[in-house]
Amino acid sequence: MSTPTPIPHRTQVAIIGAGPSGLLLGQLLHKAGIDNVVLEARSAEYVLGRIRAGVLEQVCVDLLDEAGVGERMHREGLVHGGIELAFAGARHRIDLQTLTGGKTVMVYGQTEVTRDLMDARAASGAPIVYEAADVQLHDFDSATPRVSYTHDGVRHELACDFIAGCDGFHGVCRASIPKERIQNFERVYPFGWLGILADVPPVADELIYSNHARGFALCSMRSKSRVRHYVQCSLQDKVEDWSDARFWDELKSRLDPEAAEHMVTGPSIEKSIAPLRSFVAEPMRFGQLFLAGDAAHIVPPTGAKGLNLAAADVRYLSRAFMEFYADKRTAGIDDYSRKALRRVWKAERFSWYLTSLLHKFPAGAGDTGEFGHRMQTAELDYLVHSTAAMTSLAENYVGLPFEE
Amino acid sequence: MSTPTPIPHRTQVAIIGAGPSGLLLGQLLHKAGIDNVVLEARSAEYVLGRIRAGVLEQVCVDLLDEAGVGERMHREGLVHGGIELAFAGARHRIDLQTLTGGKTVMVYGQTEVTRDLMDARAASGAPIVYEAADVQLHDFDSATPRVSYTHDGVRHELACDFIAGCDGFHGVCRASIPKERIQNFERVYPFGWLGILADVPPVADELIYSNHARGFALCSMRSKSRVRHYVQCSLQDKVEDWSDARFWDELKSRLDPEAAEHMVTGPSIEKSIAPLRSFVAEPMRFGQLFLAGDAAHIVPPTGAKGLNLAAADVRYLSRAFMEFYADKRTAGIDDYSRKALRRVWKAERFSWYLTSLLHKFPAGAGDTGEFGHRMQTAELDYLVHSTAAMTSLAENYVGLPFEE
Repeated sequence: MSTPTPIPHRTQVAIIGAGPSGLLLGQLLHKAGIDNVVLEARSAEYVLGRIRAGVLEQVCVDLLDEAGVGERMHREGLVHGGIELAFAGARHRIDLQTLTGGKTVMVYGQTEVTRDLMDARAASGAPIVYEAADVQLHDFDSATPRVSYTHDGVRHELACDFIAGCDGFHGVCRASIPKERIQNFERVYPFGWLGILADVPPVADELIYSNHARGFALCSMRSKSRVRHYVQCSLQDKVEDWSDARFWDELKSRLDPEAAEHMVTGPSIEKSIAPLRSFVAEPMRFGQLFLAGDAAHIVPPTGAKGLNLAAADVRYLSRAFMEFYADKRTAGIDDYSRKALRRVWKAERFSWYLTSLLHKFPAGAGDTGEFGHRMQTAELDYLVHSTAAMTSLAENYVGLPFEE
Repeated sequence: MSTPTPIPHRTQVAIIGAGPSGLLLGQLLHKAGIDNVVLEARSAEYVLGRIRAGVLEQVCVDLLDEAGVGERMHREGLVHGGIELAFAGARHRIDLQTLTGGKTVMVYGQTEVTRDLMDARAASGAPIVYEAADVQLHDFDSATPRVSYTHDGVRHELACDFIAGCDGFHGVCRASIPKERIQNFERVYPFGWLGILADVPPVADELIYSNHARGFALCSMRSKSRVRHYVQCSLQDKVEDWSDARFWDELKSRLDPEAAEHMVTGPSIEKSIAPLRSFVAEPMRFGQLFLAGDAAHIVPPTGAKGLNLAAADVRYLSRAFMEFYADKRTAGIDDYSRKALRRVWKAERFSWYLTSLLHKFPAGAGDTGEFGHRMQTAELDYLVHSTAAMTSLAENYVGLPFEE
């Protein structure tokens, strides 16, 4: 780590949040010669302690390369050319690479992406403030927005041209927008994911998504010696209800016989329960304030779109800022919300579709219970026998093309 | 019409119901030299008065040709190589023919199919009894099943090898099966379709399926001078609530400007409201009794799968009977329920998908209200820009291949 940089009182872009969205935006802007300051309410250790997604689309990989932080990812990450769907006791491979004309995904944990970005930020000497408390946004509707915050007991103020709200679902940025100017869309699912991290070899070479009468399961990985596995659980469940032994037994019961046989168990090094939610706030721009990533939208983790969608927002937003500072053109800025939302909604659709297809839904209104289960079975049976349907799944999984 | 045939007391296959399933099965069996009797509770005029679907898959067209009743269909029917999806004020063509490597659909009313089949039945001299009252099934679990019925005030009994239950959703065949031997799956939709028939030119060359904020609309046709149009309506609505003027106004408001401009109005010659339902009964065989068509399953009309699915059942069932009588092989009979249901569930899935995609759902649990509407918009936006997704829609619309 380099010597702490003095924090300026004025910058071009104030970035709120040092998760992957904020750090990636900061790095891209820094490389383009655009001044920016990153403010993060938590410590770096806290941010790195959050276990999140681990599947990167090609566009996300390309963006990390562009930011100059792809070196370790290419060395340690696993390139996957397919995924497996398990149902009715058998596995079916979706050959992403063949179906999409050569596209693949990169298995590399979000924690590692964040670490690489933090290292690059430190090396660049660009300013970043961790544990910036009580962040407040001021005058983002004017040409002279400001952000104030408390650090080491002292109140600071940062004047800027733009504020980038990259501070997640619970962050201050979206919360600062008057209710009447924002429209929220939400779907909460009646179940959660219980996830564990363990240092054992993966069940198979690729990810296995399982639709099972006992509930959904996902065998994912972070490396060839570290797995990230999930089982669908009740929202009433607590982590304490789930011993490692119970978790492994439950996972095994939801896999096909071959996968179950290859499953290696071991002690969990992390275990947590997360609810599943679809959420979109519209628009994504409010004067000089721009929302990106989880601050504007949440997807259920099925389909691994969360981080990729954040990267897509950052791609649009970084280009908009570059265009503005290079040529004083505002077209990118003015079109950011529309373009980002168009991609967001497609990823929301895909995540909702895959969630609906693979989970066990309790009986109730709508497409649930026995009829809903038969719709899943019919869809899966159709899917793995139709090149068109598999291609549609594959092109969404590897990431839809960008609108330029 | 030929002279009435005396009704035998014994036949090989007793067919219950003279809708298109029963008549088509009867004709195929008759041509294969298999004796059969068709019993219908209503009059021929009543059966012909029911206005139903009007889009035939290629496999249905082929089967009607095989039955020798395709001549008028090929002369009067309209071959369509595409459909149009309307949303957000514009129309998008799905080029069925190009996307499926040359497949098309035939626009020809179910009423006309039924009339052609009735004419062929009369010409063949094969026995058919209309107004067969109080039909009862006996001993279908034994090798000697029987059917009894009252005709012209006289009770009759018909001994047979097999009973084909082609008598629709409200028929006696499925109702004769003990509850514990049958499993029903059902989804009732919270809206209906108000349909009119009118002698005016179609709005466009092909069918228009419209997703609109006011609700779904479909511009269909029976010929170049007769249209069949629908608007989604409330289940509380009554036909008397809908004057012709109100219907045309409502339809116009749900179309894109170009289609609205080309709409020609005229007096309705039929007007009715139908609820939308997904229903499947499993299995489709009970001893010597086989269910086919609406007796076993109902699809919502979106996607026009009802008649086509009935024809698919009849295809499987006719071949099973032919195999049995020609070679005494029971493989087709034994596999009928599994094969038919596999296709049924895929068509149920497609019909449910298209219904979910195109209708306005009232706010409530599940994927309804504003979030659900955005899922529709995102899906439509994705669909019309993805060749893979359009191909998937097209291959289902023209009809999935048969399992031989």
